[in-house]
Amino acid sequence: MKVQGKSYTTIWLNEEKDEVISIIDQRYLPHQFIVEDLHSVNELAHAIKDMHVRGAGLIGAAAGYGMYLAAIEASRTNSPDHLLESADLLKAARPTAVNLEWAVNRQLEAIAKGTTLSGKINIARNTAVRIAEEEDAESCQRIGSHGVAIIEQIKKRKKGKVVNILTHCNAGWLAFVDYGSATAPIYEAFERGIDIHVWVDETRPRNQGASLTAWELLNQGIPHTIITDNAGGHLMQHGLVDLVITGADRVTIDGDVANKIGTYLKALAAYDNGVPFYVALPSSTFDWSIHDGIKNNPVKERSPDEVKYI
Amino acid sequence: MKVQGKSYTTIWLNEEKDEVISIIDQRYLPHQFIVEDLHSVNELAHAIKDMHVRGAGLIGAAAGYGMYLAAIEASRTNSPDHLLESADLLKAARPTAVNLEWAVNRQLEAIAKGTTLSGKINIARNTAVRIAEEEDAESCQRIGSHGVAIIEQIKKRKKGKVVNILTHCNAGWLAFVDYGSATAPIYEAFERGIDIHVWVDETRPRNQGASLTAWELLNQGIPHTIITDNAGGHLMQHGLVDLVITGADRVTIDGDVANKIGTYLKALAAYDNGVPFYVALPSSTFDWSIHDGIKNNPVKERSPDEVKYI
Repeated sequence: MKVQGKSYTTIWLNEEKDEVISIIDQRYLPHQFIVEDLHSVNELAHAIKDMHVRGAGLIGAAAGYGMYLAAIEASRTNSPDHLLESADLLKAARPTAVNLEWAVNRQLEAIAKGTTLSGKINIARNTAVRIAEEEDAESCQRIGSHGVAIIEQIKKRKKGKVVNILTHCNAGWLAFVDYGSATAPIYEAFERGIDIHVWVDETRPRNQGASLTAWELLNQGIPHTIITDNAGGHLMQHGLVDLVITGADRVTIDGDVANKIGTYLKALAAYDNGVPFYVALPSSTFDWSIHDGIKNNPVKERSPDEVKYI
Repeated sequence: MKVQGKSYTTIWLNEEKDEVISIIDQRYLPHQFIVEDLHSVNELAHAIKDMHVRGAGLIGAAAGYGMYLAAIEASRTNSPDHLLESADLLKAARPTAVNLEWAVNRQLEAIAKGTTLSGKINIARNTAVRIAEEEDAESCQRIGSHGVAIIEQIKKRKKGKVVNILTHCNAGWLAFVDYGSATAPIYEAFERGIDIHVWVDETRPRNQGASLTAWELLNQGIPHTIITDNAGGHLMQHGLVDLVITGADRVTIDGDVANKIGTYLKALAAYDNGVPFYVALPSSTFDWSIHDGIKNNPVKERSPDEVKYI
């Protein structure tokens, strides 16, 4: 997406030296836009731990690149144990992140298939790029093309009048690699020329809405208003919200959604006022092991669709 | 109530010079405790307008004292028109405050009955003291003694385990003259030795919960925790809230409650989780003219009870 008119993703292989990973250091947004270069798996783990990068998809992508740096280091120092040590280091950087563990394990499996040191590095590089640029960015883009249909419908019903969308926290491109989950349909709608306006929940206590989502929308030129978390219910009571879209931290097999504190209150208000409430997520956010609120209690083997709306 | 161990009300006649009104300047709480002396109706109107004093009950009490200062000034300058001018000045200081208009009109009626200049001043002084010290403080105290019964019941049901009460915004003694409305049953319960803990909603955007209610509770020594406005629903889902008590800006004849933004979201969550939700108010907060959402549409003449719980 755009930052002051220039296209960015949240993480990328440095153009001049592809043994360096570049990230947007999100700690300083919206006040400063700082790109940080990470040269080692240590630096990368620290960037996750210290919230230079955050958000489910982005943490997974960062972990993928971390394992690529680990493969380079293992080769340079001729210490194959370094891969497993780095895997533990990365997993410990944010123990609650499902995507992190998933990306690290996927890299370990992939790298194991390499027969030479340089082959292992190549595999790690390709896997990291695939996780970040192909899978994460593409699935978000597809959330956009699926989700925009809902906004199109509301536009028709409102006969072209502005469509008001409320979102909570940041499930934007800053939480992924590009496009975002909750924001993807919004970006797509704007791209198609639909007249939209976004109510951005401040999202206390860490203000990800006010600091990150609003900054994203500002850079895309999308009309938006930052509101206190208390205001959404009142706006819904007065017909000023046409739909709510949020992201999710984790969604169970039953469709139960865990997301940033305060999402529940907005869902209650949406229900009370007949406002449609959507949760936008890539299939990697489903936790297929939780059923009836119990871990490791799957109903049956199910293959997740590419994109689901609950 | 107590401030660093010493008893205060929010407004009082200065002990040495009773032509001076003293107030707690609430703009600096919780960081600084500043008492301000007001010497003229002009200064008093400014204190209302600039939020040195705020809260339904306190604004009414302040307006009563303002008219007392106006009566003194009218006598000194021998300009009877000054009373009506001061009435307009005070009303314009916060046009939305029901209690302000009510207190000013009551003073005009009372003062008109005086036959001498000094008689009018005495009437104004007595009326102001009656509004603040007798009616406002006493009705709040009675809210406490009525409301504590609810807390006693919950205590019995919980077999003496800590009773968790959630409140939103500041409907404490700082919004009145003493005791407060929502806080009065809390203070009374604590006085009776009931083991209580208060969840204090931060109350964005102006943080009256974090700045004022928490400061009140701290000074009374009542266990409490400041939470983000987003957290209340989650706490209710986990059985950590036994009841909610808030104040009200205005309550209609049908029992519809208008209160600080965000109250509605907490009411929805309380309903969803079977948590009792109480609104504590003195009868002056009822607006008997609103029926079925329409102004000046009274059902019939009704005399408000002293205290009501909706």
